[in-house]
Amino acid sequence: MDTALTTGPAPEFEVAAWLNTPGPLTLAALRGKVVALYAFQMLCPGCVSHALPQAKAMEALFGRHELAVLGLHSVFEHHAAMGPQALAAFVHEYRIGFPVAIDQPDPDGPVPRTMARYRLRGTPTLMLFDREGRLRHSLFGHQHDMLVGSLMGRLLA
Amino acid sequence: MDTALTTGPAPEFEVAAWLNTPGPLTLAALRGKVVALYAFQMLCPGCVSHALPQAKAMEALFGRHELAVLGLHSVFEHHAAMGPQALAAFVHEYRIGFPVAIDQPDPDGPVPRTMARYRLRGTPTLMLFDREGRLRHSLFGHQHDMLVGSLMGRLLA
Amino acid sequence: MDTALTTGPAPEFEVAAWLNTPGPLTLAALRGKVVALYAFQMLCPGCVSHALPQAKAMEALFGRHELAVLGLHSVFEHHAAMGPQALAAFVHEYRIGFPVAIDQPDPDGPVPRTMARYRLRGTPTLMLFDREGRLRHSLFGHQHDMLVGSLMGRLLA
Amino acid sequence: MDTALTTGPAPEFEVAAWLNTPGPLTLAALRGKVVALYAFQMLCPGCVSHALPQAKAMEALFGRHELAVLGLHSVFEHHAAMGPQALAAFVHEYRIGFPVAIDQPDPDGPVPRTMARYRLRGTPTLMLFDREGRLRHSLFGHQHDMLVGSLMGRLLA
Repeated sequence: MDTALTTGPAPEFEVAAWLNTPGPLTLAALRGKVVALYAFQMLCPGCVSHALPQAKAMEALFGRHELAVLGLHSVFEHHAAMGPQALAAFVHEYRIGFPVAIDQPDPDGPVPRTMARYRLRGTPTLMLFDREGRLRHSLFGHQHDMLVGSLMGRLLA
Repeated sequence: MDTALTTGPAPEFEVAAWLNTPGPLTLAALRGKVVALYAFQMLCPGCVSHALPQAKAMEALFGRHELAVLGLHSVFEHHAAMGPQALAAFVHEYRIGFPVAIDQPDPDGPVPRTMARYRLRGTPTLMLFDREGRLRHSLFGHQHDMLVGSLMGRLLA
Repeated sequence: MDTALTTGPAPEFEVAAWLNTPGPLTLAALRGKVVALYAFQMLCPGCVSHALPQAKAMEALFGRHELAVLGLHSVFEHHAAMGPQALAAFVHEYRIGFPVAIDQPDPDGPVPRTMARYRLRGTPTLMLFDREGRLRHSLFGHQHDMLVGSLMGRLLA
Repeated sequence: MDTALTTGPAPEFEVAAWLNTPGPLTLAALRGKVVALYAFQMLCPGCVSHALPQAKAMEALFGRHELAVLGLHSVFEHHAAMGPQALAAFVHEYRIGFPVAIDQPDPDGPVPRTMARYRLRGTPTLMLFDREGRLRHSLFGHQHDMLVGSLMGRLLA
């Protein structure tokens, strides 16, 4: 459930477009902050009912000073139903205020590029990066708020 | 919150297409059953978190012998994000087993035909029809399960 | 799960004392109203988390004009911990506003008199009486709000 | 909401009796572990619905190797309803498996001794002690699981 990808700085995200941010974000530019990245799909029930509310709670509890909460829309199924325009409507209706990246589609297959690069098993997946940009946790599925809080506490300590 | 539309049999739905049913359904053909029709939009948060689970609970509790639970996808905003293909993906991912009608779009405006005909204020709206096909309740917004149960109990009595 | 006790008027409750009412209540005096009686124990977790909130919701939804919501404290275990003084503290802390009867203890055994007379299997049990004072439903355990609502709807119809 | 009591090791608890432990526990003997102490009352609704389930979740998530979860029954009202025998029944019915201390009553007033010594404002209060036995957090009222997790994460780091 929790596998570190690498020991050095994690690879950058491959992103087709960003929502809720004036310009593209990179792990390099976020160095110094803890980064919580939620890979999700807008039509994934567990993402909608648990992961995205958890992401909102995280931002509300820890603020934006030491932590960056990001979404990564990693569509690997129902591509026609979850394009950029649909995502924009979803982000608006669900009042998502944090930056959301659209994972770069791969013309050769259903799995988008960042999802493949990070070997994600599905959505939701929560990835936690430390202040040095290293991937410290990659958690697939529904995670208890207290567990996520404890990992955040250790990274923010 | 609860306004009867008419005293006689309610007007038929205007439907572009149906999901989860071998053929079109009509109020006339459902005469003899109580009909619970949930007007919803797939990107409406209250529909997803409350109305559709309530519709599933209704079908599980009362069965299909005396009751027909139906969905009506009445899209009046974000039309490009909630087309038929997106709805099919949504119905699949959310394990919706009851028939779902796609409200007939109106080429002259954003509000689809059945929504306009029934003067719905938004989504979710629960419409309850008695065994004679008369609209008895039209309830906009989040409704307590116990209230809905009591209305069902009276109609099924 | 649902067994009618009798076909005629139900036997009266045997009650040691009442809380939240100026005088004793009887089924005979409540004739004309639907009566929802929740048998509970103050240290029964399912009673506290589900049955009593449901009783409050019932009173809030249907009011006191056609319906009487009552509690029946039927202690059959941990008697020393659930005496009248403890119950009064519980009723105060949990903001229970409806009348609560203390089931008459039986000097010869742990099961109090009304519980025995009505052959209750445990707590919580919801008993629903129609306007003629007949016991129509006796439901042991956690009941879905929608189911309870539908039974209420039929009895109030 | 969060006030450290002292900078040095915290004062020991004054305890009339312990449940769920073969012998008395002391902060001194728990040195080396993080200690999470939940002050509660068995008839306090917020304690029952939120704090005690949170204490159970904490033990389930973090185990007993590095963390000691304890209850402190600090009765300051309804004393007759919350005596040791009642508490034992409560602990049994609510399946509380961690050690629970009964705060030493004060013959001169309603507030028990540990509650007074730690200046608790009411129940529930969560007190977190670090591995050196220092009180690091004293949190009155309902606390978000993620917040509690983050404090635990920092103390366990």
